[in-house]
Amino acid sequence: MTDLASAAARALDGLRATCPLVHHVTNLVVMNDTANVTLLVGASPVMAHAAAELDEIVSQARAVVLNLGTLDDSWISAMRRAGAKAREIGVPVVLDPVGAGASELRTRTSAELIRDVRPAVVRANAGEIGALTGLGGAVRGVDSVAAPVDPPWVVRQAARAWGTVVAQTGPRDFVSDGERVVTVDNGHAWLGRVTGTGCMAASIVAAFRAVEPDGVVACAAALACFGLAAERAAARSDGPGSFRVRLFDELFDMTPARLADGARCAFV
Amino acid sequence: MTDLASAAARALDGLRATCPLVHHVTNLVVMNDTANVTLLVGASPVMAHAAAELDEIVSQARAVVLNLGTLDDSWISAMRRAGAKAREIGVPVVLDPVGAGASELRTRTSAELIRDVRPAVVRANAGEIGALTGLGGAVRGVDSVAAPVDPPWVVRQAARAWGTVVAQTGPRDFVSDGERVVTVDNGHAWLGRVTGTGCMAASIVAAFRAVEPDGVVACAAALACFGLAAERAAARSDGPGSFRVRLFDELFDMTPARLADGARCAFV
Amino acid sequence: MTDLASAAARALDGLRATCPLVHHVTNLVVMNDTANVTLLVGASPVMAHAAAELDEIVSQARAVVLNLGTLDDSWISAMRRAGAKAREIGVPVVLDPVGAGASELRTRTSAELIRDVRPAVVRANAGEIGALTGLGGAVRGVDSVAAPVDPPWVVRQAARAWGTVVAQTGPRDFVSDGERVVTVDNGHAWLGRVTGTGCMAASIVAAFRAVEPDGVVACAAALACFGLAAERAAARSDGPGSFRVRLFDELFDMTPARLADGARCAFV
Repeated sequence: MTDLASAAARALDGLRATCPLVHHVTNLVVMNDTANVTLLVGASPVMAHAAAELDEIVSQARAVVLNLGTLDDSWISAMRRAGAKAREIGVPVVLDPVGAGASELRTRTSAELIRDVRPAVVRANAGEIGALTGLGGAVRGVDSVAAPVDPPWVVRQAARAWGTVVAQTGPRDFVSDGERVVTVDNGHAWLGRVTGTGCMAASIVAAFRAVEPDGVVACAAALACFGLAAERAAARSDGPGSFRVRLFDELFDMTPARLADGARCAFV
Repeated sequence: MTDLASAAARALDGLRATCPLVHHVTNLVVMNDTANVTLLVGASPVMAHAAAELDEIVSQARAVVLNLGTLDDSWISAMRRAGAKAREIGVPVVLDPVGAGASELRTRTSAELIRDVRPAVVRANAGEIGALTGLGGAVRGVDSVAAPVDPPWVVRQAARAWGTVVAQTGPRDFVSDGERVVTVDNGHAWLGRVTGTGCMAASIVAAFRAVEPDGVVACAAALACFGLAAERAAARSDGPGSFRVRLFDELFDMTPARLADGARCAFV
Repeated sequence: MTDLASAAARALDGLRATCPLVHHVTNLVVMNDTANVTLLVGASPVMAHAAAELDEIVSQARAVVLNLGTLDDSWISAMRRAGAKAREIGVPVVLDPVGAGASELRTRTSAELIRDVRPAVVRANAGEIGALTGLGGAVRGVDSVAAPVDPPWVVRQAARAWGTVVAQTGPRDFVSDGERVVTVDNGHAWLGRVTGTGCMAASIVAAFRAVEPDGVVACAAALACFGLAAERAAARSDGPGSFRVRLFDELFDMTPARLADGARCAFV
C-alpha cells in the first residue's frame, strides 16, 4: 500500500462522513448516470441551471461540475454564472471540456471557462487536452482519436499553463498540479463501452475534491475508486450493459480499506 | 388485508385494464426512468413541452405530471400552460415541487403552481412540504435534511391549505386530503440511493390517479405498489445499481393479488 | 441463411471495422440509451445541437439521426440545420418522426423535414406512418394505437411519396425503398415495455446506414441485429428491467456469424 493509496482511503472516509452537496451544470446525455454515481460514492448531487437560482444553489454546494457535453448558448451562460459564483465564494470547480477540439465552439468555450472560472480541476481525455494545449492529439465527436506522445509532460504543462490540477483519463490516468505527476492504473476496457464514463469520473472527482483540498490526492483517490469499482464490476458481468449496473453496486460497496488495498496510483 | 389494500389492488386492476396516457413536463435527470416506470406500472407515458402542442397533448392525457427538478423559464412556462389546460378540462395534475425550499425560484414557482393549477396531488418529501407550508423542515439541494415533527398534522394542514391531496414520501409515507390521513410503510432504504425515486413515485401516483378518482386511495395504492416492488427487488439485489434494474422488473410483475397481500397502508 | 441475412452479416462486419461517427439531434428521454446502443453496435455517438457547431459536427459524421421526441422551436431549428448540412454534403439522415399524428406540430414538422432534408431513411411505427401518409393508423401520445391494414403496400407507397427508404417497426418490421419490400421478424414483446426502443432502432439503423449504402439492406440488417439481440436478451431476463440490461450486453456480443444465422428477414 502506497502513501497515495492510504490518502485515497482517508479521502473516501471523509467523503462518506460529510456527504457534500455537488452541484452540476452538465449535459443532457449523462445527467442521470452522473447523479447516480455522485450519490453512490457518498455525496449528494443537485442539477440546476436557471440563472435565477444558480447563486443560491452554488452557495449550498461544496463542489461544482461544469460539463460541456451538450452545450448551447443558454447552458454556456449557466456554466459561466455558476463558475463565477463558485470562484467568488471559493467553491472548487471541476471542468469537463467534452469534445474540445471537435468544434471551435467547444474549444473556445473550454478555454474561456479555464481562464475566467479558474477551475480547481480539469478532467479530460488525451485528445481534448492535446487540442486545448496545442501539444498534439485529436478529437472526433467526443472521442479522443489521437493522444499526445508524452502524457506526463503534457499534463504537467497543461496544469502550469492553466494554474489548475489536470486529470487526463484513459487506459492509464495521469494527474498533475504542474509539479507532481501521478499515474492511476485502475480501470477496465468496458469503461470505454459505456457512454459518459468520463463524465461520471468528473463527478466523482468533484465529490472527492469537495472534502480533500489537495487536488492531486483528490483526483488520484477518485480515479482509483472509480477504476477499482470498474475492475470488480467487470469480473461479475457479461458485457457492458450488466457492467454498468454492477459498477453502480461496486461504487456503493467501496470501502476505505478496499480502496487502500486496490488503488494502483503512484507518483511518477 | 385492509380495506385500503383491497382498494389498492382494485386500482391496479383498473390501471392495467385502461392503460391511461400520462403526460409529463418533467426534469432532464429522470425523464427516462419516469417514462419507464409509467410504462411498467401499466400506463402510457408521453413527454412534451412545446407551447405549440401542449393543449393537444394534455387533451389526450388522463393525468399530467409537473415536476420542477431542472426548472428554468421555458420549462416553467410549459408547466403553467400544461397545468392551465389540465385544470380547464378536468385532467388531474400531480405536482412534484422538487427542491422547494432550496431556492427562492423553486419555492415561489411551487406556490404559484399550487395556487393557479390546483393540482389533484402534491407529491413531495418532508423538507419540501415543510418549506412550502412554513411548518418546519429544511432542504439542501433536492434533499430533505430536516422534517417537521408531526407529519400527520403537517400533511393534513398542507392538504387543507392547498385544497389538494398531499403525499409526503420517505421511510414512512403520509397521505392526506385534509380530513383522512393514511400511512404507507412499504419501501426500502435503497430507494434513497437511486436518483429520482421520488420523481418515479410521482409518475406512478399520476398513473393510479388517472383511473382512481379518490386521491387518497390513488396515492396509497401507488406508494404501496412502488414500495412493495422495492422490497421485492432489494431481496434479489447486490446494491442500488442492480436494485434499480430489479425494481423495474418487479413493477412489471406486480399483480393486484400481490399488492393486496403486501400493501402496508392504513388510516391513522 | 438468406442472401439478405448474409448481407446483414457483411454490413455488421463493415460497421465494426469502421466505427463511424453518428451524430444525433434527438430527444431528452432517450439520449443516454441511444448513445449506448450506438456505441455497443460498433459506432461512435455524438449528441450536439448548438447552431454554432452543427456544421462542424455534421461534417465529421457518417450518418445523422433526427428525432422529434421532445421537440420545441430550438430543437426543430437544430434538426433543420443539421439536416440541411447533411443533405448538402451527402451524409445520410435517419428521421424518427416520434409522435407524428399526435399533434399538429409533430405532423407538420415531420412532413417538412421529409420534404426539405430528404432523409435516407424514415424509421417510424405504423401509426406514425399512417398519420403522415394519410393511409390510416392513429397515434396517441407517442404510441401507435391503430395500424393501416396493408403494411407492405403502405410502406411502399410512403417510400415512393417521400423518395426515401421507410422502415416501419413493430412486432413485424417492414422496409421498403418504393420497389422492394422486406420483412424482419426478429424481436420480442418486451421491446414494447422499454421506453425508447424505437429510438434505439433508429440509431442502430443510422450506424448500419453509415457503412451500407443500400438503405433496404442497412435497415434489414439493423432491425435484425436489434431484434435478435432482444430475443437472446429476453431468454436470460426476468422482466423488462433486466431485459434492457441484457439487450445492451447482447448488442455488444453480436457477431456477423450469429447475425447471419439468426436474422429472419426476407423479401416479400
